[in-house]
Amino acid sequence: MVDTRLEGPVRIVGAGLLGASIGLGLRARGVDVILVDSSATHLRLAIDYGAGRAASEQDEPKLIVVAVPPEQVAEVVARELKAFPNALVTDVASVKLEPLEQLRAMGADVSRYIGTHPMAGRERGGPASARADLFLARPWVIAGHDEISYRDAGPVEDLILDLGATPIELDVKRHDESVALVSHVPQLVSSLMAARLAGAEDSAVALAGGGLRDVTRIAASNPELWLQILQANTEPVLEVLREFSADLARVIEALSDLDQRGARSAIVE
Amino acid sequence: MVDTRLEGPVRIVGAGLLGASIGLGLRARGVDVILVDSSATHLRLAIDYGAGRAASEQDEPKLIVVAVPPEQVAEVVARELKAFPNALVTDVASVKLEPLEQLRAMGADVSRYIGTHPMAGRERGGPASARADLFLARPWVIAGHDEISYRDAGPVEDLILDLGATPIELDVKRHDESVALVSHVPQLVSSLMAARLAGAEDSAVALAGGGLRDVTRIAASNPELWLQILQANTEPVLEVLREFSADLARVIEALSDLDQRGARSAIVE
Repeated sequence: MVDTRLEGPVRIVGAGLLGASIGLGLRARGVDVILVDSSATHLRLAIDYGAGRAASEQDEPKLIVVAVPPEQVAEVVARELKAFPNALVTDVASVKLEPLEQLRAMGADVSRYIGTHPMAGRERGGPASARADLFLARPWVIAGHDEISYRDAGPVEDLILDLGATPIELDVKRHDESVALVSHVPQLVSSLMAARLAGAEDSAVALAGGGLRDVTRIAASNPELWLQILQANTEPVLEVLREFSADLARVIEALSDLDQRGARSAIVE
Repeated sequence: MVDTRLEGPVRIVGAGLLGASIGLGLRARGVDVILVDSSATHLRLAIDYGAGRAASEQDEPKLIVVAVPPEQVAEVVARELKAFPNALVTDVASVKLEPLEQLRAMGADVSRYIGTHPMAGRERGGPASARADLFLARPWVIAGHDEISYRDAGPVEDLILDLGATPIELDVKRHDESVALVSHVPQLVSSLMAARLAGAEDSAVALAGGGLRDVTRIAASNPELWLQILQANTEPVLEVLREFSADLARVIEALSDLDQRGARSAIVE
């Protein structure tokens, strides 16, 4: 094993865009990667791409990365914690407080679990979109909580550094509030703006410049995934949305005033 | 004169980004271009760049393009209509109904005026940012009104075609409604989103991905110019903003419902 901080093998559950990209990146560093996926086709494809190998009975992974859709995270993490009582388990979902609370409610051993969130992705998912350099120079949050220290989660930080990303320590609550502000609400706003245009006449849309394309581009992302993310992060998202909505109301009021004064001054002229 | 539909000379009033770019584009086609600007420095620079020549007493322009800030458009167009009683006058401002109404209120001869709006620009203004190919393949609205036919405004269409842009006929009211939807409101929304971030902690902003950059990029544009545009197009902007705000309120309500049900189901689990 060369050029890596990690002690393998690393077991990755979920060979989609993120899981397969992590696998490719670790394999490039010589780490032994075990891939698991509920879809045999996805698994085959990811293994063919070189993102890792199939699991065997003898495997004793030190680190397990759960890379499944947000609403399955808690269930899969709990199962992995139970199946591998000596392994540290992490996940890569966009929301961190809800799965932790679900794990606590299930009585899982969260002293061996710490969630993460790589701030990287593509509009298209699946193992065929995976890239070894997906995380290069991107921020990657390690979402701390009371039952485990950042120090005990060392292998997770090693994984992040091995993939060329920048680890950021942020507790679960702060993480969720931050992504609501910089990711979830901009996504929602972008989708709402795009929806306004769906009913517009062609002649109006024909005028659209680059600015509009920018504001609505991210509206093209996977809507099911986004719904799961919003459902799991409603409180922080609602807080930012309500502030944004209040700002908007103030702008509408100011423009209405201007409109009334403008109408009057136009009559005088 | 080669390779042009236009009969010169064309007089351009305002040698900023748009005026100087039009001048450069027409000069490349061999059209005689007269440049005028209230700033001697801007004028000198634009002439040095090859966007046209200084005016002379003998000039009898057939077509006059007014490329000044929105709030000066009506005044300058009225002055040009009076000074050149045989010329067709146009402008390139982002809003079309208000200047037309101001011209009517001033008693200007609007049978020789038709406004236009090229859907092109850059974040930076001034003659130094001018480019002959700024309008290539971009939509360029000819904003019709009752006192002039599109046919009588033929030289304006020739100018647009000479610059490689695509003319779109849209009456002044429809134009203003369309740009409110595809340009002014996206700009406002982008600025509001950017403003939310101004108060955010660094650790939150450090997580921002490309999506956020896209949504807030156009917020960097010239704020004074945008204020003038919004002031001149308040009614259509308000209509779209109110619809957008209603959409947002529905999302907030739906998420609140979800949040309350989510909280209850979390307790049951």
